[in-house]
Amino acid sequence: MTPFKLTDELLVQIEDLITDHKDSKLVSLMDEIHYADVAEIANELNEDQAVYLIKLLDSDKTSDVLKELDDDVREAVLNNLSSKEIAEEIEELDSDDAADIIAELPDDIVQEVISEIEDREHAQDIVDLLKYPEDSAGGLMAKELVRVNENWNVLTCVKEMRAQAENVTRVHSIYVVDDEERLLGRLSLKDLLTTSTTTPIRDVYIPKVDSVNVNEDPEEVAKIMSKYDLEAIPVIDDLGRLVGRITIDDIVDVIREEAEKDYQLAAGISQSVEADDSIWDLTRARLPWLFLGLIGGVGAAAIMGGFEELISKHAILFFFTPLIAAMAGNVGVQSSAIIVQGLANDDLKGSISNRLVKEVLLATLNGVILAAILLLFTWVWKGSFPTAMAISISLIVVIIVAGIIGTFTPLFLNKRGIDPAIATGPFITTSNDIFGILIYFWIAKVILGI
Amino acid sequence: MTPFKLTDELLVQIEDLITDHKDSKLVSLMDEIHYADVAEIANELNEDQAVYLIKLLDSDKTSDVLKELDDDVREAVLNNLSSKEIAEEIEELDSDDAADIIAELPDDIVQEVISEIEDREHAQDIVDLLKYPEDSAGGLMAKELVRVNENWNVLTCVKEMRAQAENVTRVHSIYVVDDEERLLGRLSLKDLLTTSTTTPIRDVYIPKVDSVNVNEDPEEVAKIMSKYDLEAIPVIDDLGRLVGRITIDDIVDVIREEAEKDYQLAAGISQSVEADDSIWDLTRARLPWLFLGLIGGVGAAAIMGGFEELISKHAILFFFTPLIAAMAGNVGVQSSAIIVQGLANDDLKGSISNRLVKEVLLATLNGVILAAILLLFTWVWKGSFPTAMAISISLIVVIIVAGIIGTFTPLFLNKRGIDPAIATGPFITTSNDIFGILIYFWIAKVILGI
Repeated sequence: MTPFKLTDELLVQIEDLITDHKDSKLVSLMDEIHYADVAEIANELNEDQAVYLIKLLDSDKTSDVLKELDDDVREAVLNNLSSKEIAEEIEELDSDDAADIIAELPDDIVQEVISEIEDREHAQDIVDLLKYPEDSAGGLMAKELVRVNENWNVLTCVKEMRAQAENVTRVHSIYVVDDEERLLGRLSLKDLLTTSTTTPIRDVYIPKVDSVNVNEDPEEVAKIMSKYDLEAIPVIDDLGRLVGRITIDDIVDVIREEAEKDYQLAAGISQSVEADDSIWDLTRARLPWLFLGLIGGVGAAAIMGGFEELISKHAILFFFTPLIAAMAGNVGVQSSAIIVQGLANDDLKGSISNRLVKEVLLATLNGVILAAILLLFTWVWKGSFPTAMAISISLIVVIIVAGIIGTFTPLFLNKRGIDPAIATGPFITTSNDIFGILIYFWIAKVILGI
Repeated sequence: MTPFKLTDELLVQIEDLITDHKDSKLVSLMDEIHYADVAEIANELNEDQAVYLIKLLDSDKTSDVLKELDDDVREAVLNNLSSKEIAEEIEELDSDDAADIIAELPDDIVQEVISEIEDREHAQDIVDLLKYPEDSAGGLMAKELVRVNENWNVLTCVKEMRAQAENVTRVHSIYVVDDEERLLGRLSLKDLLTTSTTTPIRDVYIPKVDSVNVNEDPEEVAKIMSKYDLEAIPVIDDLGRLVGRITIDDIVDVIREEAEKDYQLAAGISQSVEADDSIWDLTRARLPWLFLGLIGGVGAAAIMGGFEELISKHAILFFFTPLIAAMAGNVGVQSSAIIVQGLANDDLKGSISNRLVKEVLLATLNGVILAAILLLFTWVWKGSFPTAMAISISLIVVIIVAGIIGTFTPLFLNKRGIDPAIATGPFITTSNDIFGILIYFWIAKVILGI
């Protein structure tokens, strides 16, 4: 019962077994390993080895492994399977996992695979799910659930439930619908078992049940489910009809992916990449933000070019440009990150102007403390009080402006319906670099009177 | 069934009802609202109002609201309750939530509250849980679970289960233990129902069950549960004895908190704060990193001071220091973020040196592309090819070094058992600023021959 850990030794052992075509040894080894771990192994093998290994597994395990594989490995494996073979794997999966895999197939294969699925009801469910965009409750939900009609009596209900539960891995709730399939409520198993068999469901169900609309944003679904500690939530369409169910394990993935995306945006990585992706993929994710930084840097250079006279007289001002730029960037990232998190957690109350006032107070407090330290240092180092004063006053103003930009930008983007997370990271650092340097030299010019 | 949304109007309405002491109206309004939403409302009220509102609720709802409140509001409410009243609320909660709340109380109150709890078994469970550190599986688990002995027969088992299930909100699994309370496996409800009542449990249980050690890191538990799609996992002590159970809703919180922490570290915020915290709390979270940035900036200024001669001859070099510093910082954050995520997701395979080689190749590719653009720009702008060349070559070297530092630092911290996430954000930007500027002027000096 110790958790599985993929070691380099195990990987080499498996690679050797594959090279030597020791099929029976491989099969018995894989039998011992959970499908999620088999997928982890396959992700580390090269394409041919991964295909070889997975083709050895029985169909049940293959389908489970398939849904856990990295996209690129899965694509390679599916390329090596016929439409009929893919359909057989699909048959074993829940409708949501099945639809996710089918959605990745080339268009011409999709129809073939669907027509090869023997369970026509399952095929229909999958086709239904393919209609919904990936980033909606519909794109997350599965069709497998237990539904009973309000007009049935307890006896019919129990009989029907038993048949339906066959297809459902985990029955979290029994949902009650009317003749138009509209969601009415849920049924407690306890009530069901303690009620006379002829009682109509209408008289025993609980009319209160949380649900989400099929078009709802997955992040919103995640918020609702984690706020109310739900393990499953029914999904309804615009007419209130029960169309599916989302379970907490899918929501865990949503939360993880969302967090990764925000983190990557804050770090200046523009698409989802992993350390093991190719240099080309990593470049495509990283270069755009670096290019933005380059433009910012060139802009800063151009601004500084406009202050050449000032600089020739007070060369020391130059020495502090990196400090000013860094402080502007750091303050901007801090304040935007706090706003982005507040928006994500829905706990920003009050108006934008209140928020800006608070940030100005905060930035002033931080700015004055830091500027006092800097004043002391520059005065002692260079001996010129007016220059030291000019630098320190500039620092305060730059910090305040950076705080305002950092606070305002994500709030503004959010109002416009744009993901505020893009406001963090290189975007805010770059623009604050430029603003910071401009303000810095401008204030220095005013104070030093040139 | 539309999700609850806390509007400013509702908040004002509630505040007015509290001011006017319209207790019965408040009670009937709160009756309609889910406890998680009541907590959300109370978090937005001032301290006195929150206490007033919560004291109106019945004990059942109060306990649920208590566990959802923000720490500071909960503290205020508990300060207004006697030890006996707190004990009554604790009585209603699951052992894990109860222990979390008790752990926040002042030491002298803890003993009083525990002695006031009427259900002595519950009190014992809570005392047990208080032993475990917050950041361990033991600190997350609840004592409520259904356990059966391998020596019981099916009939005894069903009877015992029924009694135990009374205290368990959601029965995910039935765990089987031996006479020494060691976890042996789990029981399928279906097997239990289809087996003769005299069959011993020993003959029907499933001996395979995932479990975690009570000292396990919560993040590790989260990884295991989300990898294997588990909704609950039993917790065992070093002797293999079943001591508790962790459910997925607690894990969702762990994942969220972990993601927030990493995000805040990347953004240079040193402790968990929210936008609505006081200016003082926010300053304490933000100032340390800004201070680090200030030191970095002063360091950069000192370095530049050492190159005064070079700068006096080639003033244009100065114009590009913000660009160099920004690029060094951005590349460092990007590469460290990718490593931090790889470490968090356990998908970094291979040696540190392989990783560094890859990062060097990647940084070189990005560096050459960016340097070529910059070369063209500076050449056209300032007309001096050698200077333009010096700046561009420096940029390539700075990007490579920044990539190496960004890759190496989190890997090194992780090897030392330190959270690699602290390597992102201001830490890496500041050190890369300094290194970048030093390398920049040094290379320029070599190339321009001064």
